[in-house]
Amino acid sequence: MVKTLEWTDDGVRFIDQRKLPTEESFVTCATYEEVAEAIRNMTVRGAPAIGVAAAMGIALGMRDAEGDHAGELRRRLDEICDTMGETRPTAVNLFWAIERMRRRFDEISESTPAQIRQALILEAQRMYVEDIAACEAMGRHGAALLPSSGGVLTHCNAGALATCGYGTALGVIRSAVESGKKLHVFADETRPFLQGSRLTAWELMKDGIPTTVISDNMAGAMMRLGKICAVVVGADRIAANGDVANKIGTYTVAVLAKEHAIPFYVAAPFSSIDLATPTGAQIPIEQRSAREVTHISGKQIVPDGVKVENPAFDVTPARLVTAIITERGVAQPTYAESLQKLAG
Amino acid sequence: MVKTLEWTDDGVRFIDQRKLPTEESFVTCATYEEVAEAIRNMTVRGAPAIGVAAAMGIALGMRDAEGDHAGELRRRLDEICDTMGETRPTAVNLFWAIERMRRRFDEISESTPAQIRQALILEAQRMYVEDIAACEAMGRHGAALLPSSGGVLTHCNAGALATCGYGTALGVIRSAVESGKKLHVFADETRPFLQGSRLTAWELMKDGIPTTVISDNMAGAMMRLGKICAVVVGADRIAANGDVANKIGTYTVAVLAKEHAIPFYVAAPFSSIDLATPTGAQIPIEQRSAREVTHISGKQIVPDGVKVENPAFDVTPARLVTAIITERGVAQPTYAESLQKLAG
Repeated sequence: MVKTLEWTDDGVRFIDQRKLPTEESFVTCATYEEVAEAIRNMTVRGAPAIGVAAAMGIALGMRDAEGDHAGELRRRLDEICDTMGETRPTAVNLFWAIERMRRRFDEISESTPAQIRQALILEAQRMYVEDIAACEAMGRHGAALLPSSGGVLTHCNAGALATCGYGTALGVIRSAVESGKKLHVFADETRPFLQGSRLTAWELMKDGIPTTVISDNMAGAMMRLGKICAVVVGADRIAANGDVANKIGTYTVAVLAKEHAIPFYVAAPFSSIDLATPTGAQIPIEQRSAREVTHISGKQIVPDGVKVENPAFDVTPARLVTAIITERGVAQPTYAESLQKLAG
Repeated sequence: MVKTLEWTDDGVRFIDQRKLPTEESFVTCATYEEVAEAIRNMTVRGAPAIGVAAAMGIALGMRDAEGDHAGELRRRLDEICDTMGETRPTAVNLFWAIERMRRRFDEISESTPAQIRQALILEAQRMYVEDIAACEAMGRHGAALLPSSGGVLTHCNAGALATCGYGTALGVIRSAVESGKKLHVFADETRPFLQGSRLTAWELMKDGIPTTVISDNMAGAMMRLGKICAVVVGADRIAANGDVANKIGTYTVAVLAKEHAIPFYVAAPFSSIDLATPTGAQIPIEQRSAREVTHISGKQIVPDGVKVENPAFDVTPARLVTAIITERGVAQPTYAESLQKLAG
């Protein structure tokens, strides 16, 4: 299994997701600023992965921070966390990770600077391990929901590359396949960044799971032809009422699934669930550079001067979501109650 | 206005639609085989345009055909028509144009070879002129259906570049704008061939009509945000019951329009209406090369060995179509009756 990200003595090491599938190259970020830039420019992407990347970036920044008492280190922590928090606005895992690192600091702020630095590195590494375990648990809970055979559509990449390993939506598919189900994955290519054609197809092929890439606009036709039995996607943020922010195009897939009476599942760790945000309307949606739409592989595909839109995410209302698969179990509607209950 | 295609003494001249929007270049096809190849490789595309291109190709082939009596010329006509009929299977305009050229031949088969050749050239030129007139009539009939202001979504390119001029769906939009309506066009980029971002945006910008390009998967989000008041698309073939074959992704847009209670209009000349085909289920859907999906501008975006689908068209069932705009007037449901009535 590819290592999406990894803590090393030299810094945080990422597979460069901008270069897949034609080039498997790795970059090591030696400073927290470099980690922030890797999140911003999508060297690493996927809500759970950028959460852990941010935690490792904070640990890295604190490891190298000057300061021989907790007050100095706290000021440094605030600066580093501010930088991390400004990288991408939608995935709540980023803010969850920052908060968790802050809390850990608070717990051990009476210790020596060396102990604080060490504790933060360990906390980031613990989040890494927990993320993989959460994906595996989602896989166990979600596998039963998928049909014993048939086509399953996924959008964007909610796989090993979007997490520390195994994946959320693709973790559910992997687990179902491991349990003997005969699934064929349809991967939406997912313009503009092409996470489906570049990343999902790449990692599923490595696992030998049959995969067909389609243009985003083919999903409806495939459903109408009876080729899709279920949809599984990830999430960047789930509001308290079950509204789901995920990669642009997810909402369209959810509407199509409803039209064809196909179940639409969302798989996400609890770190993606934001009970403090009441509905999807309050989730900030990142607008990314026009160039992602106007150019592909450096080649211009839109005339000079034409306006484009590039919202990186959209919101799927809870009413279109059949179930939300988490590491703690499967939430069914009404989500305002079921998510609260799983949250304990 | 750009000349999409044109009869010249040297052959049939096309703007090369594969090179737009970054390069405005023209190719002249000196033989009917070159015209057939230009249709196949999408130098020229759009159902009405390929109909007239085929007619001009037939006229060109017959102009240069050896033979000094009608029997020889008829054998040659059959060969040329067979070649044209094998280029692309879905747009019925191609077969309509071939039949019309055959009928014209039958009408004048008693004439001299020189007169036959001249009559076929004139017939192709007549179809060219009629196509522009049909687009203008569609514009007049359809403009009233559009709102006085707001966003109108279109998919693929059903514009001047898909016809001999003015366009079908874009003709309706042009006519509405000329009548004073304040419209803003949202153009789906339309993977894999990118007719929306490359062609629709290009020709609307030349006309000064405000246009925003979006990835196909953004259409749902734009509708949910209230940015789209109406949808207008073209058609490659309309069955007798009103089912519409059009560029892949049209069906997805129609489902989204229904979900948001947005009117979904189809604009097409009568040459796109195939009363001999009872429903969309009988319309042949062209499957194009995998490479259109796996590569963009020569750059590979899908891992080696992964399967892709590439149906060039899908079928939108009549129940999702608010009205069909033709040069003879606007057909409303039930289409089995209204289309028959317009057909006279």
